[in-house]
Amino acid sequence: MSLNDALQAHKASLCEALAVDDRERLGALLPELRSADIAEILEAILEEDADPPLALALLGRLPLERQASVLGHLPGDAQRVLAEAFSDERLLPILEEMGSDERADLFNLLDEDRRQALLRRMARREREELIRLASYAEGTAGAIMTADYVAIPSGMTVSQAMMRVRQTAPDAETVYQLYIVDGLGRLAGTLSLRQLMVAPPGERIDALMIKDVIRMSVDAPQEEVARRVARYDLLALPVVDDEARLVGIVTHDDALDVVESEATEDIHKGMSIGALEDGVSRVPLWSLYRKRVTWLVLLVFANLFSGAGIAYFEETIAAQVALVFFLPLLIGSGGNAGAQAATLMVRGMATGDVGVRDWGKLLGRELLVAGSLGLTMALAVAPIGVMRGGEAVALVVAMSMVTIVLFGSLLGMCLPFLLDRLGWDPATASAPLVTTLIDASGVLIYFGIASALLAGP
Amino acid sequence: MSLNDALQAHKASLCEALAVDDRERLGALLPELRSADIAEILEAILEEDADPPLALALLGRLPLERQASVLGHLPGDAQRVLAEAFSDERLLPILEEMGSDERADLFNLLDEDRRQALLRRMARREREELIRLASYAEGTAGAIMTADYVAIPSGMTVSQAMMRVRQTAPDAETVYQLYIVDGLGRLAGTLSLRQLMVAPPGERIDALMIKDVIRMSVDAPQEEVARRVARYDLLALPVVDDEARLVGIVTHDDALDVVESEATEDIHKGMSIGALEDGVSRVPLWSLYRKRVTWLVLLVFANLFSGAGIAYFEETIAAQVALVFFLPLLIGSGGNAGAQAATLMVRGMATGDVGVRDWGKLLGRELLVAGSLGLTMALAVAPIGVMRGGEAVALVVAMSMVTIVLFGSLLGMCLPFLLDRLGWDPATASAPLVTTLIDASGVLIYFGIASALLAGP
Repeated sequence: MSLNDALQAHKASLCEALAVDDRERLGALLPELRSADIAEILEAILEEDADPPLALALLGRLPLERQASVLGHLPGDAQRVLAEAFSDERLLPILEEMGSDERADLFNLLDEDRRQALLRRMARREREELIRLASYAEGTAGAIMTADYVAIPSGMTVSQAMMRVRQTAPDAETVYQLYIVDGLGRLAGTLSLRQLMVAPPGERIDALMIKDVIRMSVDAPQEEVARRVARYDLLALPVVDDEARLVGIVTHDDALDVVESEATEDIHKGMSIGALEDGVSRVPLWSLYRKRVTWLVLLVFANLFSGAGIAYFEETIAAQVALVFFLPLLIGSGGNAGAQAATLMVRGMATGDVGVRDWGKLLGRELLVAGSLGLTMALAVAPIGVMRGGEAVALVVAMSMVTIVLFGSLLGMCLPFLLDRLGWDPATASAPLVTTLIDASGVLIYFGIASALLAGP
Repeated sequence: MSLNDALQAHKASLCEALAVDDRERLGALLPELRSADIAEILEAILEEDADPPLALALLGRLPLERQASVLGHLPGDAQRVLAEAFSDERLLPILEEMGSDERADLFNLLDEDRRQALLRRMARREREELIRLASYAEGTAGAIMTADYVAIPSGMTVSQAMMRVRQTAPDAETVYQLYIVDGLGRLAGTLSLRQLMVAPPGERIDALMIKDVIRMSVDAPQEEVARRVARYDLLALPVVDDEARLVGIVTHDDALDVVESEATEDIHKGMSIGALEDGVSRVPLWSLYRKRVTWLVLLVFANLFSGAGIAYFEETIAAQVALVFFLPLLIGSGGNAGAQAATLMVRGMATGDVGVRDWGKLLGRELLVAGSLGLTMALAVAPIGVMRGGEAVALVVAMSMVTIVLFGSLLGMCLPFLLDRLGWDPATASAPLVTTLIDASGVLIYFGIASALLAGP
């Protein structure tokens, strides 16, 4: 990806200063930049020069804490390259400074030997936490949660809890939502720092806390986590294991990243593109090919049905070659309307706006809207039918348009529900799939109506 | 939209209890439910019964603060219905309890007379703030920001600031990020509550605060606000006017809502559907028709180019009707590959992963990927060509496939950049538009190759 102008200028200055080892200038430049910006500059440097000495030098000029933060902002590829270039002695202190979730993500990028080497150098407690966090399947609450939360033992007073907050503050991802756990580590309640600050110091937190905590199971899909954070406007969402023990929290910023990446995945799925492991400008070409080719080839074969339909009506076509003029127009229009209907349903289901039970109501609505769309489009195309083939052809084309648009829209609308019912992802009802299905049906509808109405040559 | 099972059960219990005015049961049921859940139940009640007495009765059982919070969670339509059913005396205290951003949104839903009536009853300060917040154009930072932030005058000590935080706490949207303003109301710095809590009480905040604050202009588009919150993992983003005066903040939960609704808008645009003002299950049918029809009809006319292409090659077709068999397949495949390429670019540009400068690099990548895709699809379709029309037809079909897929993909890839260059929204390069353009070019490519290679009947 390319930098914007401001970052491009910063990058040039940084590279210059690094080249002549101008410490003073680096000392002035670096504190001005945020970690996310430095990460973007580093990424650009790495892209130009796969050999990372310049990137390493730049990273080395930052305090340890910022090195950790910058590393956490980099995409996986860049993280791996840098981590592999570091010695264990150099990498370990950075890992220690990273948030527990980012540390686990980076750890999972390394090869087995390196992981073992790093684990051997860690204290037991650290090692166990890292192994635990790194073990959760990608796309689950466990994989995006952090273990750096503020836990308060049940039974403490407000002033004791406040003390605990101050002690934990430097390491915790957020100190603004506190989680109260019982003797077995189970989540017993929650309290915001705001509530704690205005409470009488001697009061027991058990009396103040909210007991009915919104929580998520550690193996819940990440999109459900994000949806819950959004729905209840949460700062963080606690994550619990099978025995209701608190094992981590997902913070608002991670939930936002999930919403964004899930949206990208959904948009790609809508065009039959598999989930990419990175941005389109960075993902390896081979991967991009694989994620696109499967459905494209499947749809080549599905498209044979359109061909078969045409073969079946070959006589009608040979007698009235002028009909072919309207073929792309009719099947294209049906495909467009159908893809719209499918997309509206798939996105509605993804955001929770549409439920499976709404099917009946939505079918009625689509019937009305698609009927009106079909009529409008038939009116638009009828004059052209008259011009090119006379009134009989115009009638065939107009009738076909209404039928194809109506049929296509209903098919597009129903397909996501059907797929969901069969246990598939409704997003499989992508524009290419819907369009292809409507192409085949459109051929049959159009030439069927034509051969019925236009008697012989 | 339909409720999930748990909420359905809650709704049934609530309606029962309301019907017999069972205060005890209501008193037990209501505190268990969160505002977002009560809002969803209310919405379902309103949908079944446009007359709102039951919904009003339910709302009336809640403490004022929760009434405000539930109202804020409702979609615009429902808010208007309820607000119109309330008298001014009943509505005013609820408005007062609402967050300033939600209050302004609700205010904008009312008709002019009602707005004037409400304003007359407000204190001057309140009135001015409401008029100001309600005046920002939809989709800007101003329209989603809240005025309920904690502002600390420059020059205070840590302990004075802490006192200010405690005083403001009940009314502020967040107390966890503090904004320091100078005598002219200009944003001078920021400080997290976490930093404040561990600072020496006598220290001046001016010495502690971060001066280089990430901020946003009040008329910046909301998607830029959301992107900045995401990029820098912010809890809240301060919003300033032309003179650098602090006028509001956008909190993380509102940024998350923006990301979600912008993604929905982008997904819809990708199918040439205009931005809907509400969820697909709620938006009026007329609006749904309007948002879909424009492009569908435009594309009907664009599709005439395909027809014109076919008319031009009518002789070739009449001589070899078997060629029509492959027409939907070839133009469909090109359309699918092209729509994929366009979608990858449009989404990449929306998330900031792809910049206009990346064009050259991405063109090279697409050339390789699309070339491979075209070859794979040509291999898949060649045997069928042999079966249906012999080797000559197979050659024509395979060559057309490679050319159409390659051309379609490059067109799909370049169109978003071209539109952006022309000052249009790159998302206008929707799947239907790209598919239609490729249909027309595909017809020309296919029959062009056919008439060149297949000499006469």
